[in-house]
Amino acid sequence: MPITKEWQALIDQKLNDRASRIFPAWRLPHDLTEHVRPDASVSAFELLRKTTILSSKEIEITETYSAENLIRILATREITSMEVTTAFCKRTAIAQQLTNCLTEIFFEQALQRAKELDEYIVKKGRPMGPFHGLPISLKDSFMVEGQAATLGFISFLKKPNATKNSFLVDILLEGGAVLYAKTNVPQTLFTCESYNRLFGTTMNPHNLSLTAGGSSSGEGALIGIRGSILGVGADMGGSIRVPSLCNGTYGFKPTANRVPFGGQQDFIRKGWPGVLPAAGPLAHYASDLTFFVRSVLLAKPWLKDSTALAVPWREVPKKARLTIGVFLNDPMFPVFPPISRALQSAADKLKKAGHEVIPVNAPPILTGVTGAVRSFILDTEDTVSKYLAEAGEEPVECVRQMNLAALLGQSGVSLDDMWRFVAEREDYREDWGKIWRENQIDVLLCPGSRGTAVPHDKYGIPVYTLLWNFLDFPASVIPYERANKALDTEVIDGCKLPYYDPTLTLTDCILVNIDEVDGAPCHVQIVGWQFQDEEVLSATETIADVLN
Amino acid sequence: MPITKEWQALIDQKLNDRASRIFPAWRLPHDLTEHVRPDASVSAFELLRKTTILSSKEIEITETYSAENLIRILATREITSMEVTTAFCKRTAIAQQLTNCLTEIFFEQALQRAKELDEYIVKKGRPMGPFHGLPISLKDSFMVEGQAATLGFISFLKKPNATKNSFLVDILLEGGAVLYAKTNVPQTLFTCESYNRLFGTTMNPHNLSLTAGGSSSGEGALIGIRGSILGVGADMGGSIRVPSLCNGTYGFKPTANRVPFGGQQDFIRKGWPGVLPAAGPLAHYASDLTFFVRSVLLAKPWLKDSTALAVPWREVPKKARLTIGVFLNDPMFPVFPPISRALQSAADKLKKAGHEVIPVNAPPILTGVTGAVRSFILDTEDTVSKYLAEAGEEPVECVRQMNLAALLGQSGVSLDDMWRFVAEREDYREDWGKIWRENQIDVLLCPGSRGTAVPHDKYGIPVYTLLWNFLDFPASVIPYERANKALDTEVIDGCKLPYYDPTLTLTDCILVNIDEVDGAPCHVQIVGWQFQDEEVLSATETIADVLN
Repeated sequence: MPITKEWQALIDQKLNDRASRIFPAWRLPHDLTEHVRPDASVSAFELLRKTTILSSKEIEITETYSAENLIRILATREITSMEVTTAFCKRTAIAQQLTNCLTEIFFEQALQRAKELDEYIVKKGRPMGPFHGLPISLKDSFMVEGQAATLGFISFLKKPNATKNSFLVDILLEGGAVLYAKTNVPQTLFTCESYNRLFGTTMNPHNLSLTAGGSSSGEGALIGIRGSILGVGADMGGSIRVPSLCNGTYGFKPTANRVPFGGQQDFIRKGWPGVLPAAGPLAHYASDLTFFVRSVLLAKPWLKDSTALAVPWREVPKKARLTIGVFLNDPMFPVFPPISRALQSAADKLKKAGHEVIPVNAPPILTGVTGAVRSFILDTEDTVSKYLAEAGEEPVECVRQMNLAALLGQSGVSLDDMWRFVAEREDYREDWGKIWRENQIDVLLCPGSRGTAVPHDKYGIPVYTLLWNFLDFPASVIPYERANKALDTEVIDGCKLPYYDPTLTLTDCILVNIDEVDGAPCHVQIVGWQFQDEEVLSATETIADVLN
Repeated sequence: MPITKEWQALIDQKLNDRASRIFPAWRLPHDLTEHVRPDASVSAFELLRKTTILSSKEIEITETYSAENLIRILATREITSMEVTTAFCKRTAIAQQLTNCLTEIFFEQALQRAKELDEYIVKKGRPMGPFHGLPISLKDSFMVEGQAATLGFISFLKKPNATKNSFLVDILLEGGAVLYAKTNVPQTLFTCESYNRLFGTTMNPHNLSLTAGGSSSGEGALIGIRGSILGVGADMGGSIRVPSLCNGTYGFKPTANRVPFGGQQDFIRKGWPGVLPAAGPLAHYASDLTFFVRSVLLAKPWLKDSTALAVPWREVPKKARLTIGVFLNDPMFPVFPPISRALQSAADKLKKAGHEVIPVNAPPILTGVTGAVRSFILDTEDTVSKYLAEAGEEPVECVRQMNLAALLGQSGVSLDDMWRFVAEREDYREDWGKIWRENQIDVLLCPGSRGTAVPHDKYGIPVYTLLWNFLDFPASVIPYERANKALDTEVIDGCKLPYYDPTLTLTDCILVNIDEVDGAPCHVQIVGWQFQDEEVLSATETIADVLN
């Protein structure tokens, strides 16, 4: 079914409106933008360095601070929110033109808000709250009064703009944040890609030909290129961590419903009984992940959002010596040389720094992956397909390929699948419980994916993040090292490069050559037990200090 | 299908074994036990006062202390565990003969354990842990190494005795507790009655003709008559709170999986996706509920039991002035005069004591009840009926009557019922969220049942406790006042006494005359938001101080 003229007109109107929201002075010349294509092996950082739109002060503001530090000097009035907001809006305008990372742009409102905050702090003599004056970017799913939330579904263009903020958005605004843009997602939000038929492809700033990951694709790209210093995503299978590891940022998926998830644009059928999604931050520093989660929880989100858990923030003392379980590879899903090298190097450095590093005998991640997938097929109404069909939108290749029922070797679904899902999760949690108990580990160090960002539409199922959603365990991603074609030459399991294993049905769209990903950011993933968000954040800071 | 001779022989053997475990010197004379019948309107307390088995010291030990106080003097060695254990074993032996509250009796092991604890404290100069020397009773579902756990199912007589303790049992033992008896449950554990075909009827010590409630029936009766100072039950619809309110004890149902639930005797099909059960304490003092939960959580149960939530105990400051929402009655389920009077009196006293008491406009409790019931029909395998059928055991009347699917007006069940269950719970939580937010209440004061304990097999569906299981909200019961036929003469909704409303299909086995329940304990229920167990316990102590 093709897109009708009526829908196409709505799409054109939306894209024109989006383009118009970038002030003329912030538009890039054609000789830069002509290089911007999803098949161009080009660095957006290099293109950015060729513009003169950003002043040196603006480059300093956007490149050299942590969110916390910026808030500190905003609080002392060494800098104004207007300066900071202008710098990030400008850089975001450039990011949009280089990576196509945005869905909604509201710079004018942001600058007005910054002005009000600057007046507030002068008048009251104190900041409005923990986020005073700081621009924060949001995944498109978050509702911001007056703004659309299409989630890349063409049919959602007919939905009215938000009349109410998501609960988290209210908390950020009450805390003094400046909101200025919302960011792109992949079609259906159920893949780790960056393309939808409404807004097109979000590109990875490190290399436009690579995916920005998903589903918080635009957050990953925007924060990657420092158009944002702190952003909010949501993660049900890796949707915060995959964009983080693809774009070289930090990211944290909390235990579900600690950071309030309520009041987002609905796209999952009501009553969803499966793996719970979690909202969480992406940032440039581990300490900013902690700062975000702590500040949000100190606002007691459960007093606003009845879906948020009334589990208050706990201050945990920083451990001088962590006990870190290390799990480098599941033989069924071989980890590719750049990530293996990063993990091994991280483990070595941590040991040298005095931490206890214990290799653990991990249970098969396939069990966790199939358990999670079992819940993804529970929607007998196939709600997401309906949203596509409403506007005659065809599923894209990677959505079409994702026949989850077939992955499980079944054709239908029944109530018994729900029982199986719960039973398998209980067993798998106990499998990991043994690992935690026997080794008395604080956290686990493991891959967040088999490789780095891959060329568009080749990410496949995010096996190394998804299992932690199945278990509802908090997990962060730390950027560390980069793919290096001179170093990452190891042959895996008898397969030469490209890294391709045709026996892996769960991942058979992965077909990547080291040349294609040379220079892409590598990472490690840090995982903790459910509800030990505070311990994971603290360990992430400690480990990041050792690594970076 | 009748019980075969083979099964009957096993039953007889079990009952003989149980009887043999009461030392001859602790056996009651026939002129007392001849009064013990489930249809006798007789007080077990009065029968107990006629025995001379307990010394005055033993009466003092069992009647005048809180668990915490007893532990305090055990720690200073003013008293030995042997003395305390002997006193409670003796009184429990009497309780068993008067109320039939026990399933497993292991006094010998208890006395041996007490001796070891007495030696321990002398040798080490300190108590073993927070429960040092204290006898604690357990619902039959908890596994104690070497003991059976039949749950009143005849077919479970063929199961081997426990080879491993439940995780909570390990925590109690590591904390220095003395275990001495396990307590009776109703057939299937899915009713609030006290009868099963293996052990028979547990009777209410206040009046043997009244139910002891269920499903922690034996705990209620045993603690009610002070054969136990602190016991552990489990609650999925009211199974801690109903026995508490029937027998005049305190009881607390925590948020599910804070007190570790794992390692109990299985009787629910694996993978249960519905309302979560919770383990929790019954006691004689509000402060002992807190003491129990705090002590268990300080042992970090999640390090043992992978189903226990890693949400540590929080110390919360005691509020001098509570904001208490009050909800006296749902017109669809009229609360009977004794409980209405107790609630109104409690609200008045609390107001006089300086607390803010706010009447709230509660959403219909029917919504919570049907939501929970929707989850109870999800077992397509009807596992519990299989356990009955295995030994040819017929369902008792109140189990047979409980056609839950019919209550919901449906004949079958499908995966969509699971979605509906989750969706209804989300909506209902938000309905209550509005109440909590608009009134900024700390806790809610409300009925825990329509009436007091009722004659056997007339309790019906525990509507006023079940809705809080649906929401997974922590809730306690405080004993307060007693039914009084001189005072409780009010006519409800046009029905004269007996309190019977034939329009209420959910409760149509309730048919009670005030004469039958005269003198039975009344109560109030205190409810808090999910995960605010600490706040509920603290408020329960404060409110109990005002009331009693």
